[in-house]
Amino acid sequence: MRARLFLSIAASLLITPALADEGMWTFDNFPSAAVKQKYGVTIDQKWLDHVRASAVRLAGGCSASVVSADGLVLTNHHCVAGCVQDLSSPRRDYIKTGFLTAARSEERQCPGMQAEILASIGDVTSKVNDATKGKNGPDYLRARNAAIAAIEKDACQGRDATNRCQVISLYDGGQYKLYTYRKYSDVRLVFAVEFATAFFGGDPDNFNFPRYDLDFSFLRLYEGGRPVSTQEHLKWNASAPKDGEPVFVAGNPGGTDRQLTASQLLTLRDVIRPPLLMQLSEVRGRYTRFAEESAEHARIVNRSLFGTENTLKAQRGAQLALLDPALIESKRKADAELKAKVDADPKLHAAIGDPWAEIAQAQAARAEINTRYSFLEGRAGGGALYRYARTLVRAATEREKPNGERLREYADARLPLLQKTLLDPQPVERDLEQLQLEFWLTKLREELTADAPETALYLGKESPESLSRELASSRLSDPALRKQLWEGGAKAIAASNDPMIRFVVKTDPAARAIRKAFEDRVEGPVDRASERIAHARFAVYGTSVYPDATFSLRLSYGKIAGWTYRGRDIPSFTTFDGLYKRATGQFPFDLAPRWVEGKSKLDLKTVFNISSANDIIGGNSGSPLINANGDVIGAIFDGNIHSLGGDFYYDTALNRAVSVSTAAISEALDKIYGQSALLNELSR
Amino acid sequence: MRARLFLSIAASLLITPALADEGMWTFDNFPSAAVKQKYGVTIDQKWLDHVRASAVRLAGGCSASVVSADGLVLTNHHCVAGCVQDLSSPRRDYIKTGFLTAARSEERQCPGMQAEILASIGDVTSKVNDATKGKNGPDYLRARNAAIAAIEKDACQGRDATNRCQVISLYDGGQYKLYTYRKYSDVRLVFAVEFATAFFGGDPDNFNFPRYDLDFSFLRLYEGGRPVSTQEHLKWNASAPKDGEPVFVAGNPGGTDRQLTASQLLTLRDVIRPPLLMQLSEVRGRYTRFAEESAEHARIVNRSLFGTENTLKAQRGAQLALLDPALIESKRKADAELKAKVDADPKLHAAIGDPWAEIAQAQAARAEINTRYSFLEGRAGGGALYRYARTLVRAATEREKPNGERLREYADARLPLLQKTLLDPQPVERDLEQLQLEFWLTKLREELTADAPETALYLGKESPESLSRELASSRLSDPALRKQLWEGGAKAIAASNDPMIRFVVKTDPAARAIRKAFEDRVEGPVDRASERIAHARFAVYGTSVYPDATFSLRLSYGKIAGWTYRGRDIPSFTTFDGLYKRATGQFPFDLAPRWVEGKSKLDLKTVFNISSANDIIGGNSGSPLINANGDVIGAIFDGNIHSLGGDFYYDTALNRAVSVSTAAISEALDKIYGQSALLNELSR
Repeated sequence: MRARLFLSIAASLLITPALADEGMWTFDNFPSAAVKQKYGVTIDQKWLDHVRASAVRLAGGCSASVVSADGLVLTNHHCVAGCVQDLSSPRRDYIKTGFLTAARSEERQCPGMQAEILASIGDVTSKVNDATKGKNGPDYLRARNAAIAAIEKDACQGRDATNRCQVISLYDGGQYKLYTYRKYSDVRLVFAVEFATAFFGGDPDNFNFPRYDLDFSFLRLYEGGRPVSTQEHLKWNASAPKDGEPVFVAGNPGGTDRQLTASQLLTLRDVIRPPLLMQLSEVRGRYTRFAEESAEHARIVNRSLFGTENTLKAQRGAQLALLDPALIESKRKADAELKAKVDADPKLHAAIGDPWAEIAQAQAARAEINTRYSFLEGRAGGGALYRYARTLVRAATEREKPNGERLREYADARLPLLQKTLLDPQPVERDLEQLQLEFWLTKLREELTADAPETALYLGKESPESLSRELASSRLSDPALRKQLWEGGAKAIAASNDPMIRFVVKTDPAARAIRKAFEDRVEGPVDRASERIAHARFAVYGTSVYPDATFSLRLSYGKIAGWTYRGRDIPSFTTFDGLYKRATGQFPFDLAPRWVEGKSKLDLKTVFNISSANDIIGGNSGSPLINANGDVIGAIFDGNIHSLGGDFYYDTALNRAVSVSTAAISEALDKIYGQSALLNELSR
Repeated sequence: MRARLFLSIAASLLITPALADEGMWTFDNFPSAAVKQKYGVTIDQKWLDHVRASAVRLAGGCSASVVSADGLVLTNHHCVAGCVQDLSSPRRDYIKTGFLTAARSEERQCPGMQAEILASIGDVTSKVNDATKGKNGPDYLRARNAAIAAIEKDACQGRDATNRCQVISLYDGGQYKLYTYRKYSDVRLVFAVEFATAFFGGDPDNFNFPRYDLDFSFLRLYEGGRPVSTQEHLKWNASAPKDGEPVFVAGNPGGTDRQLTASQLLTLRDVIRPPLLMQLSEVRGRYTRFAEESAEHARIVNRSLFGTENTLKAQRGAQLALLDPALIESKRKADAELKAKVDADPKLHAAIGDPWAEIAQAQAARAEINTRYSFLEGRAGGGALYRYARTLVRAATEREKPNGERLREYADARLPLLQKTLLDPQPVERDLEQLQLEFWLTKLREELTADAPETALYLGKESPESLSRELASSRLSDPALRKQLWEGGAKAIAASNDPMIRFVVKTDPAARAIRKAFEDRVEGPVDRASERIAHARFAVYGTSVYPDATFSLRLSYGKIAGWTYRGRDIPSFTTFDGLYKRATGQFPFDLAPRWVEGKSKLDLKTVFNISSANDIIGGNSGSPLINANGDVIGAIFDGNIHSLGGDFYYDTALNRAVSVSTAAISEALDKIYGQSALLNELSR
């Protein structure tokens, strides 16, 4: 039915509905038969196991793949741009120059980065369901979270230095699966090109195609100070792909909203997104001007500015999709159709009830709570200092509670990554922190109003300007101080006179209160109702469907293909030639010096960027593009502009994934960067 | 019916629908009988003539009133803030210190400012209708504009040094009236308080109440170098007003959209406003950071920053009103009801046709054209330099054409004000110009896409950053150069090598082309259809209704009143006492030094700001608040937050106008500013 639902949208929105290469499939439910039938390719268990064992999740929100026997990992430049910036300094700007290593000893650890390879999938649905049976609303949520905390802790007990155990909710609670990962906490940067090369065309070209971005980088997995031996890895295939060739993407799409009800979509469209788009726009304006103030400001704001622009463009595209009345109408019909089938079956009706009405009711609560929840909890803070302080203050309280009663992110199984993120040394830029804090506090006052009790609590007699100046003077930028407070627990927190610690201690009860209200009145009721809708779907339409994305490993299939829009054919490839034609010499269409000088050495016909019909979304960045043999032939780094509706539906005719080819990477490593050692490693 | 329409919205949206004190009435159609019945106040022709002759329109977009026999004019501080900034310099910041004069010789002319007092209203409906009879779309628009240009020129012929003649379209073309104004082109600043005093609470308190703003200023009309003698003026009444007292507002509401069809509201909601809100947010972010860079940047960006914040808040409030499904639903019903009545009457149906369908069709064209129209024409440029250049380049071409064939803003009757605005010396701040140009060009590229032919035309191989730097070096900041180019006409323009002139010469054909497309496909068809809807309304519901606001003189009635929202009673007055309680010492809740020092001298119980149930909207700023006797008792400066839906409907229960009392002004002039001469003049 999901497929039918989205075909019906396609039929109403598009010119050429076709059999969809749709779906972000789990590795234990991949539609191999359909792929065999359509493309003649055999995806057997061996193929799946090999790809799964080579696919990497970067805990910060990206995907990647192992591409050599020595732990070499291919991902996007934009997935390591934060690391490149962290390793830079006012005098050495690797964002600008690229990060090139001549020997393994020059490879440098990326702060906070963790790589994870999925080892096994187990089903824990009945365990979770047993724990939540008969419970509703807040009780349901607490019981579910406690069960998950216990399952994760048990599963990784005694091996949490090398493994991560995570319960993944699929089909909005229709299934709970235990994903066990081999994890690598020492991930080092091997190679990154210049920002101008990785992100040629900048924001104007983002989510566009034809495209000319060498948006890749190499990392390496280390353990015990040595590169990890990875016999299981994808074969590097630098020959040019062919139009129409079947291709696969193995990665971790972050989240989709394809199973939401119509009432939830309206909340997104009318309540959540409009202020979010305005806030992102405004902070973008501040960042832009900040960057123009000095070369150093430009350097330190790089990650925040481009991250904001990327989010803004993606969110706006999703909003445009929502503004199409056909989408909401189609959802209403699908909701009503499923409900009618449930109501027609007395037994099913007794089990399912009317979750649509419960979700609709929770939307009113969400509209009422959303602003406070967003500013005090969901999107509170802005910079690193507040995040550090909140983690420290909360961890001090939470770690004293039993595992199942904590805020979920402080459960035992979650602590190792939390601790690494907190304690890894990482530069903190005071000017930028102050900008971010000031912006947050200004919007908090504006959105909650100057007279709200929360505004009085957070600001007191201070202004956002004066308070942010004070808070940005926090010494939590020092990892040693963070370590001391982490280890010292509640007593150390109580004794600290750091301004940010004191601020969080003062405001945290209000943040926790609104979080509890959100969980009790919105999240609990919605999750419980969504679980029942999922069960209704299984009962009515069966289980050969794919779940919404949840930043867990998925496989999508399709083919190399361009598309046709308003009578214009967009081809499936670009070449280096096009890059030089598009360059103007002015940012963001300027070339790095190496590329200006190296033009004559390059084969300008080399396939550069690739458009393919694969169902992906944010989080898939860095995913390997894989051919039928299981070789890597590219790295996904973007979607086209039409893919931004992918949050809600997959549109076969227009939705395209964009990747950088291994052919282009090899050619550039050879001719532009002279990286023969890397090329040797890839060809072994 | 309009009243019924909006009562039905009120009934669906509100708790306490009541007889509405609704309407921005023209002076030749004021509902005196209704006012007499409800409030027992007699509004006769003498009263109306006296108020009309004392009411002032400031051509830049504000209202005001004459309050002494020597041409003294009361308006808002925010209506003269641009002038205060223009008269300031890096060393003398009157925005900060206030502009105080000790003698008339210190009063200084406000660049570009023109004051206008309505002298007479004549009906020219049949003249315009004769010209457009049988015409449609582009032909209709051209014929109408030519007829208007001719009427305005004829009416002011030989007296355009002292008069302005303007044809006002009322009821969306249902009536055309000739408004003849006595105009004053030499308007001088007499008195302005500190920004901190006028705008205490800043953006957080804007559109809020309780409120504590001394948002007033005094101007003086001059002619031949001497103050104008104004026997006709409002009597200054500084006694405190009473709760429930009937009050009137005479001013120039800028525009409302209460007569739009449902399809037009959907275009506003889904197509026009979302990107506008994002762009305003982003430039606000740039301005904010720009202001933080230095005291001088803060000084020169003041007008732009607060203007943007004000527009943003107003637009967002209007968007929130549109997002209420009850509004669109109510509109759909009203459209359908009127159409049904038209269709039921064969003769009426033959005359009216189906204008709703025509308007709906034009919405698709608007959605297609809007982005290009907005960036190339409607909201092109950003700063003064582009505006100067476009006026010069276009005037050179247009003035060579017959009056009726020009772009309408270059018709003969419009030239005197255009010329004054162009040639009055006014500081041009290069840093700010560059920011504004860069922002415009960046968004142009973003919204039209990097590959659009318009982007190629405007940017060439330049980036927004490099091109804006070049354009900001234009010498059009020099009034002498502008005068030379204005007088030199097409030949001087062709010979000019000023970068901004050359840029406009290059791009103007594209801007004119999209404007023509907009007029042909959107404006013409919509205006023609709206005119027929207006005729249908007159035929079905009669003429005792008020027209949408058009920045022409209107009178609204109501009473001093607070309101009740979510169980909380908001009283109708504030006092000086509350100001001191609200002050924190931090911007924007900081007091000017005079107010800190002067507290003990003040009567803290003085009524400060007033809430009244008057139907007003942007453009009413500075309007006198008048009691039953015709005395001025305050100056409108804001509406409450609920008034932001006033674009679409008037909500009696919640919509309130906010004014600063004459009582507070007199008390402050006396105790804080020691302005005994002004007080004497007001009391004479």
